Amino acid sequence: MKMTDIISKKREGMELTTEEINFVVENYTRGSIPDYQVSALLMAICFQKMNMRETSDLTMAMVNSGDILDLSNIEGIKVDKHSTGGVGDTTTLVLTPMVAALGIPVAKMSGRGLGHTGGTIDKLESFEGFSVEISEEQFMSNVNNNKIAIMGQTADLAPADKKLYALRDVTATVENISLISSSIMSKKIAAGANAIVLDVKIGDGAFMKSFESAKELAEAMVSIGKNVNRNTVAVISDMDQPLGLAVGNALEIKEAIDTLNGAGPKDLLELCLTLGSNMVVLARKAETVEDARQMLLKVIEDKSALNKLKEFVASQGGNPEQVENTELLPKAKYVVEVKSEEEGYVSKIDSEHIGLIAMELGAGRATKEDTIDLAVGIVLNKKRGDKVSKGETLAYIHANDESKIKRAEKSIIESYHIAKEKSEDIPLIYGVIK
Amino acid sequence: MKMTDIISKKREGMELTTEEINFVVENYTRGSIPDYQVSALLMAICFQKMNMRETSDLTMAMVNSGDILDLSNIEGIKVDKHSTGGVGDTTTLVLTPMVAALGIPVAKMSGRGLGHTGGTIDKLESFEGFSVEISEEQFMSNVNNNKIAIMGQTADLAPADKKLYALRDVTATVENISLISSSIMSKKIAAGANAIVLDVKIGDGAFMKSFESAKELAEAMVSIGKNVNRNTVAVISDMDQPLGLAVGNALEIKEAIDTLNGAGPKDLLELCLTLGSNMVVLARKAETVEDARQMLLKVIEDKSALNKLKEFVASQGGNPEQVENTELLPKAKYVVEVKSEEEGYVSKIDSEHIGLIAMELGAGRATKEDTIDLAVGIVLNKKRGDKVSKGETLAYIHANDESKIKRAEKSIIESYHIAKEKSEDIPLIYGVIK
Repeated sequence: MKMTDIISKKREGMELTTEEINFVVENYTRGSIPDYQVSALLMAICFQKMNMRETSDLTMAMVNSGDILDLSNIEGIKVDKHSTGGVGDTTTLVLTPMVAALGIPVAKMSGRGLGHTGGTIDKLESFEGFSVEISEEQFMSNVNNNKIAIMGQTADLAPADKKLYALRDVTATVENISLISSSIMSKKIAAGANAIVLDVKIGDGAFMKSFESAKELAEAMVSIGKNVNRNTVAVISDMDQPLGLAVGNALEIKEAIDTLNGAGPKDLLELCLTLGSNMVVLARKAETVEDARQMLLKVIEDKSALNKLKEFVASQGGNPEQVENTELLPKAKYVVEVKSEEEGYVSKIDSEHIGLIAMELGAGRATKEDTIDLAVGIVLNKKRGDKVSKGETLAYIHANDESKIKRAEKSIIESYHIAKEKSEDIPLIYGVIK
Repeated sequence: MKMTDIISKKREGMELTTEEINFVVENYTRGSIPDYQVSALLMAICFQKMNMRETSDLTMAMVNSGDILDLSNIEGIKVDKHSTGGVGDTTTLVLTPMVAALGIPVAKMSGRGLGHTGGTIDKLESFEGFSVEISEEQFMSNVNNNKIAIMGQTADLAPADKKLYALRDVTATVENISLISSSIMSKKIAAGANAIVLDVKIGDGAFMKSFESAKELAEAMVSIGKNVNRNTVAVISDMDQPLGLAVGNALEIKEAIDTLNGAGPKDLLELCLTLGSNMVVLARKAETVEDARQMLLKVIEDKSALNKLKEFVASQGGNPEQVENTELLPKAKYVVEVKSEEEGYVSKIDSEHIGLIAMELGAGRATKEDTIDLAVGIVLNKKRGDKVSKGETLAYIHANDESKIKRAEKSIIESYHIAKEKSEDIPLIYGVIK
């Protein structure tokens, strides 16, 4: 097999065989096909596309390029959840104790990553003593006993995806449905999932800016899942404003606890119920999403989800008292009100912008070397559709560095779009693709 | 300027600015843009194309990436000729003494290259003692005195083109009109030409397989020429059978001498007159191509072109007696007739195939390290449209290695297509683009 023939074939718009895709991924991972040939192929793919068979083959080739977590010692159907990324997305922290409370195993291997806030691991470190440095044995036994555990990523999952993603990033070949969907799915499959629930975000603060592109991505991922025997459901949800109210690490932990206490933001709860009910059905714990929804509402009502979180935090060395009393979570020195300079209705909140302000306050990492300030961030007080008077509080800045407050204040005001008339409602959930 | 933005822009189908094209070429040449970004851009160009402004800019950016020959000390308009490459193409050896005999300066810098036969330099080395290792002063004074000189390539002409071509070759991005035309034109312009006559070949033995693609390439190059103030004319000619009869180094030298003696193959002479008359007009030595043609016919008739060749060979240390008596040129040990096994009319001769046989006999180089056998090659006896009886001679193999003859014989027979009926004539000259 010759790489130039493979590039030519795709350039001409032909379908690549499974063998050709495996050849490219294997040899690229081991370094025997150079970057410059792969980037030419990626660009040809951007123009000529790949069909679902090719996309599924690419996914599995990337899965097979590295370690595949063996979760066979964990009883039950392992359902993983993935979000294409948004601002203030606290769903994982709320969802995982909810489904674990229903006896569905949650076995997560997680990284830290870059972004507006830290990753799930960073957020959980808001609990004193909490650690993801547990052995694989401990991890498995925790999942079997408590139905929930999280460990730092030790295995080399889908290294081909890592290498390809880095190349796509510097060659303007990121935006292609097959490349995006196979990248996401390969990581989930390598992490041992039997079934996958995806949260595909649309809007300014999301990777997909339009409903059409989000739907196309959702359909591609669901189709890959079918092709490779991992039942997959995708929920398309709004990211035209931050989800919930909190953007920050400890702030989101607090919001998650509030939600598990039945006192969280409505949109966050609704999205968790939608994603969660699909997880419950995929895990075969309910026949219909309606039944599953009732079961999830119940574990909030009877506090079993909250207790599950407490149990989980304690099982990995964290302080469960912080779950009971969120006042014990890390707190910022300064909490500053941001007041509206106008009167009207909130028509839009620039999610991306809000995320960046949180990062500048210290909530996220721009580079791997940055340290995270768990306490800082933003808590919104007004969301889309809300009426605002002049001088009313739009949001709260939680800061430890006084010098950053002025700038954050100005930026938050700019992020809020205030209109004279109340604009039409945008749905939180655009659709569910099965 | 960021390379990823430039790639994205072209991916989206937008026009690149002169500055962006210069940025890419300059930084790629000096190594500060990596291959993998350039190959992605090249693939995007293959899909989104470049317009003539971009193509001309790319050409000049490649010209400016290295040395540009300064031929200003040579009097007159320097007209260069370039062929897109064919089999048995002896035109340069015939044409250059013809136009030089009319007082048009021929100042050629030439390489050796790979191919079915050697390059012009290799062929000229069929003359005992002939050398292209002359100083630049000697070169200039030879052109001023004799109107003709050739030197080995010492300058670093269009290094960006060299680097880009090598990358295109391994990334399946060769076939794009803008990339092909700018590559050819940049080398000619860097070599100091004021005007250029191009011979664009069509057919099986050529790079361009169809009239449409050849015409498109010809038009692109003529247009670049106009845009950068180098008057350019392109002749589109047939390469569906080898040009003339000889394929080999000394064999082609002999054929060139025969042609200058008025006894060469008709097709070779005709193409030389067409290309030559356009060179004469571009050099402003005639008003019309018809006048120029008469002038060229005259320098053959009165032997002044032949004498010019003799003078040229002598001026660079070669033995001019070999021009007078071609029996003194290198000769192969074996000359073997290849006889027809069928009866009918020659409908086609696979040029590419014939070229490869000549190379296998030792006439050309497959790798830089190969040495050339000047004496060997093939001389055709029948060409397209000729009637052939069973047992009649199709061609002659000139070989020094007896073991290679059988295989060559078989291959030559396969290269000849013999039909019952005489097929329609294919024109030698498809058109002239000005």
